[in-house]
Amino acid sequence: MSDAPPARHIARRGLLVILSSPSGAGKSTLSRLLLERDRSLSLSISVTTRPRRNSEVDGVHYHFCTARDFERMRERGDLLEWAEVHGNRYGTPRDFVDQELAEGRDVLFDIDWQGADQIRTTLASDVVSIFVLPPSGDELRFRLVRRAEDDEATILRRLGNAREELGHYTDYDYVVVNDALQDALDGVEAILTAERLRRRRLTGVDGFVTGIVEAL
Amino acid sequence: MSDAPPARHIARRGLLVILSSPSGAGKSTLSRLLLERDRSLSLSISVTTRPRRNSEVDGVHYHFCTARDFERMRERGDLLEWAEVHGNRYGTPRDFVDQELAEGRDVLFDIDWQGADQIRTTLASDVVSIFVLPPSGDELRFRLVRRAEDDEATILRRLGNAREELGHYTDYDYVVVNDALQDALDGVEAILTAERLRRRRLTGVDGFVTGIVEAL
Repeated sequence: MSDAPPARHIARRGLLVILSSPSGAGKSTLSRLLLERDRSLSLSISVTTRPRRNSEVDGVHYHFCTARDFERMRERGDLLEWAEVHGNRYGTPRDFVDQELAEGRDVLFDIDWQGADQIRTTLASDVVSIFVLPPSGDELRFRLVRRAEDDEATILRRLGNAREELGHYTDYDYVVVNDALQDALDGVEAILTAERLRRRRLTGVDGFVTGIVEAL
Repeated sequence: MSDAPPARHIARRGLLVILSSPSGAGKSTLSRLLLERDRSLSLSISVTTRPRRNSEVDGVHYHFCTARDFERMRERGDLLEWAEVHGNRYGTPRDFVDQELAEGRDVLFDIDWQGADQIRTTLASDVVSIFVLPPSGDELRFRLVRRAEDDEATILRRLGNAREELGHYTDYDYVVVNDALQDALDGVEAILTAERLRRRRLTGVDGFVTGIVEAL
């Protein structure tokens, strides 16, 4: 058995996994569970100029920064993508992604369709994009409205954002309906497992097969 | 919750799942386990002019037929693909596949690279192809040689066939190494689950999303 390394060591390129959905479709819970269960996956944390909410922790939910710091990063090319939404800026730090990929880890992006669009443009073939749908419109509306933290204007804006985000599901490779959380999680995990077995990502498979043929 | 049907009922096109590998890589065991565990998957049984082996059952391993019957099917267009290998002909009956797809079931093909090539040409976007690799060349050689049923000429020919088949792994979407059977099975099942969540296969998703947006 000395002709080839064990199967699990076939080298492959890292994945950039994009998870998008309208707010309220359960994407954040899905992301959290996914990261807990998959140790070769790291979350890309966005940088934002948006004020921190009470429930948010700097460096966990976002890297919060000033408009000036954001501009400096953007100008230096430190952001893989960035977008302005309702006057606030959001971006993805490039360093973290490069470093994780170099270490053979995959990176999860919990971003909206605008960010997804830019990352697809920059890193096309390594991107796997998944759109998470709520089980129904009534259910989504219910989830958006019951967030006590937000006022009515915010809720209305969020309903509008949800409509806009839903309009872009056709840009995504996969669609997962979050009807039962466990099923949705199983679906996303299956997508990751499958995409890691894609031949064109397996940079080491050519040498592996050559080794097999030579031993016959 | 009346605005859209339950998620599990989003209509989709059926899949044609091709499993190829050199003989001896454990593909038949994988196919059998897959079919046992996945009730929405049916096996396409090839028709062949090759003589039946003692271990084979007509209608289970192949539909055995005469050269004349084969020709008649081929001429009538009843075969989705066909090929001649070492003087014997092999083909895929079209009726069965059409019928399974019409009933919303997926079809598994346990065929070689030639058959895979033709099915890809005929049904491109509905085809998902998986190449199963042995863990090593030594292991494959061992598995091919120990089959007591076959004489030395057969074994040599099979080693030659294995080399040829291995030369075509680059035509496949996915590569699964059959090192540990359970891992390989998990891999193939994940590929099926993922491919069933591909947006472009979900013919019903457009109506589903429209229903959500209208309810907001």
